[in-house]
Amino acid sequence: MSNRSASPGATLAFRRMWADLEEVGLDGSSGGYRRYAWTRTDHDLREWFTGEATARGLDVTTDRMGNQWAWWGDADAAARAGDPGLVIGSHLDSVPDGGAFDGPLGVVSALAAVDSLRERGFQPSRPVGVVNFADEEGSRFGVACAGSRVITGAMTADRARGLKDVDGVTMAEAIHRAGRDPGHLGRDDETLARIGTYVELHVEQGRALDHLGHAVGVGSDIWPHGRWRIDVPGQANHAGTTALDQREDAMLGLAAAVIAARRSAEEHACLATVGKVEITPGAVNAIPSCATAWLDARGPDPEAVRRVVSDVRDVVADFDALVTEESWTPTTAFDADLTRRLATLLGGAPVIATGAGHDAGILANAGISTSMLFVRNPTGVSHSPDEWASADDCLAGVAALADVVIDLTGPHAG
Amino acid sequence: MSNRSASPGATLAFRRMWADLEEVGLDGSSGGYRRYAWTRTDHDLREWFTGEATARGLDVTTDRMGNQWAWWGDADAAARAGDPGLVIGSHLDSVPDGGAFDGPLGVVSALAAVDSLRERGFQPSRPVGVVNFADEEGSRFGVACAGSRVITGAMTADRARGLKDVDGVTMAEAIHRAGRDPGHLGRDDETLARIGTYVELHVEQGRALDHLGHAVGVGSDIWPHGRWRIDVPGQANHAGTTALDQREDAMLGLAAAVIAARRSAEEHACLATVGKVEITPGAVNAIPSCATAWLDARGPDPEAVRRVVSDVRDVVADFDALVTEESWTPTTAFDADLTRRLATLLGGAPVIATGAGHDAGILANAGISTSMLFVRNPTGVSHSPDEWASADDCLAGVAALADVVIDLTGPHAG
Repeated sequence: MSNRSASPGATLAFRRMWADLEEVGLDGSSGGYRRYAWTRTDHDLREWFTGEATARGLDVTTDRMGNQWAWWGDADAAARAGDPGLVIGSHLDSVPDGGAFDGPLGVVSALAAVDSLRERGFQPSRPVGVVNFADEEGSRFGVACAGSRVITGAMTADRARGLKDVDGVTMAEAIHRAGRDPGHLGRDDETLARIGTYVELHVEQGRALDHLGHAVGVGSDIWPHGRWRIDVPGQANHAGTTALDQREDAMLGLAAAVIAARRSAEEHACLATVGKVEITPGAVNAIPSCATAWLDARGPDPEAVRRVVSDVRDVVADFDALVTEESWTPTTAFDADLTRRLATLLGGAPVIATGAGHDAGILANAGISTSMLFVRNPTGVSHSPDEWASADDCLAGVAALADVVIDLTGPHAG
Repeated sequence: MSNRSASPGATLAFRRMWADLEEVGLDGSSGGYRRYAWTRTDHDLREWFTGEATARGLDVTTDRMGNQWAWWGDADAAARAGDPGLVIGSHLDSVPDGGAFDGPLGVVSALAAVDSLRERGFQPSRPVGVVNFADEEGSRFGVACAGSRVITGAMTADRARGLKDVDGVTMAEAIHRAGRDPGHLGRDDETLARIGTYVELHVEQGRALDHLGHAVGVGSDIWPHGRWRIDVPGQANHAGTTALDQREDAMLGLAAAVIAARRSAEEHACLATVGKVEITPGAVNAIPSCATAWLDARGPDPEAVRRVVSDVRDVVADFDALVTEESWTPTTAFDADLTRRLATLLGGAPVIATGAGHDAGILANAGISTSMLFVRNPTGVSHSPDEWASADDCLAGVAALADVVIDLTGPHAG
């Protein structure tokens, strides 16, 4: 574990930035954040990022997708010289009614780490960038990591532009309304060339570090995960007059799917969740003619995840249900050498996998050397107003990130 | 059973009227009807009713709630003389994606019965009315039988005016937009005084008549029924990172409730349905922090219905769920003497109970002598585009209704 704690100046800066963001996009009734891509709230967060970066004398650039990059040093010269920079950071957007840490902790910690290094008089031998990725959560348009997907070409510009929010507004229109040109969207090789290494700091979304007694851990990989749609057919009929043995009640198939998914996930050491359902016609006195459920399944072992889906498929076959794979992402491994190096640097920090997707995963899949730092989350709660990490652990994260920058860009880096 | 079939003129009129209505409010994609109160489609249906009534020389009046009454004879004079009229009819609105028969069959059959009686030169000794009740299904504002509830005082005008549709439009506003004054809503004693007897003809919503081999049956009562809201709490959390044993997943409680309701209903010979659910936050990758399900339960025995609810309550107690009664309606008995008389008149027609609510039930609870005629529905399907009755059975219903009018308003009535 890193024995260093954040410098006094970095600690103050961290606290001030955290307080700055506290009210932005806060929903009074839920107590959670609603920071969705290309909204007024998002605009305020982006302005805040530009202000913080400019105050530090960093060069702020915006790529073809609107991701914001704040560079300490000449990123283009380093790219041309074949020794591109180190990027740290994360994102500022949130899930609906999300917590304060998922995303902002990585951005605020990166800026505070820069302060800490400057306070010590550190001068990096290659450029250091701080990134604020756009639209990481996909809360508005349904595709997570849209910012990193578009610049790496993992999602085409046409697909991105055509995505619609619940009000039918396309991403193209939303970007236009936010004062940017959606025509610029696309793979951005110039930006990618500047990233030699990406280390994303993030609040942990489970309790592994708490169990292990460490404030900071290093990420090894992102679990394989997938999303399946389960369509259970039924026959619309009157709830008050149709004999039970005459019914084809789609809700029964849905209930069976929910229970089967949980049981099988327990058996196969995976995670399985049904978080979204749609019932047709959805009236209190109408037997459902259709019930659609979305199954999210993940786990360390891709074969085990497949077995969960197959168990659910077997159970709902009795209801003539259709199970359709909507997405499947194999294991995303971070750079194993980099991960090992960071774990050693941080005094034997635990190396943990995550079930959540991150921009770091998208960059890793694009061939960039990538790893993550996680900060302990004692309750493991995430994507909720109850998401939390202690101030001490957050500052330990800042110190760890500063150590990482020194290690990867200092005189002995390489 | 009635041996009479509908007269040739009434048969033609029935077919023409049925064809008139065939396209009104038909949804191309579902194949079902969307005839909601105080919409443009509803307006067209009301205009159609006025046209049919006027063409027959009936006096059309509209009560304080907008229910339409078409009188053959002087209803006010009869009311003053203490021998108020006989009303037949039903409603023209539909559930979402409903069938062609639920409602319109009663109105069209009533108009065709008038034609049949006129063709035979019948002259009623007391007035005969045909009614089109407004907003029977409650599809738009959530309260069934709104038209009869308001004029009998079972629902206050203030409550009715404040009901909102999914777009937040109040019933008051909807009625205003439909060109009527919502200030007129309220109990309507003048209208009630004109109704000596109400006989509503309706397509059967189960298969009792099919099993018994009869085209037409008579209604005895409406089962006790109720509606309960089940709120299952959970904790919002990330579906990809939260260990199973750390979860409070509201969806699991919902699934348990659905299965318990079905099992208990089978055991206690009741009907139980979960047709509507709401999941918060409702995202594919979020563990639900709240799942709300609505339980509709009915059956011949009120104690058995209560036992089903109590069984569900026991099961969801493990999930700390709250079960709240939203409505409870005890058994509604129709006029037993009238029901017996009609069954005998129709040659020993079966007497059957129904699990569905009807305006006839609201009028019965208001102290009006009421019964119902049911027309065979071979599949029992209802509230669905597949709802169906044969043309022969429909015409047998018209003939039965004509016989009922002769019996209750003819020279030997009383």
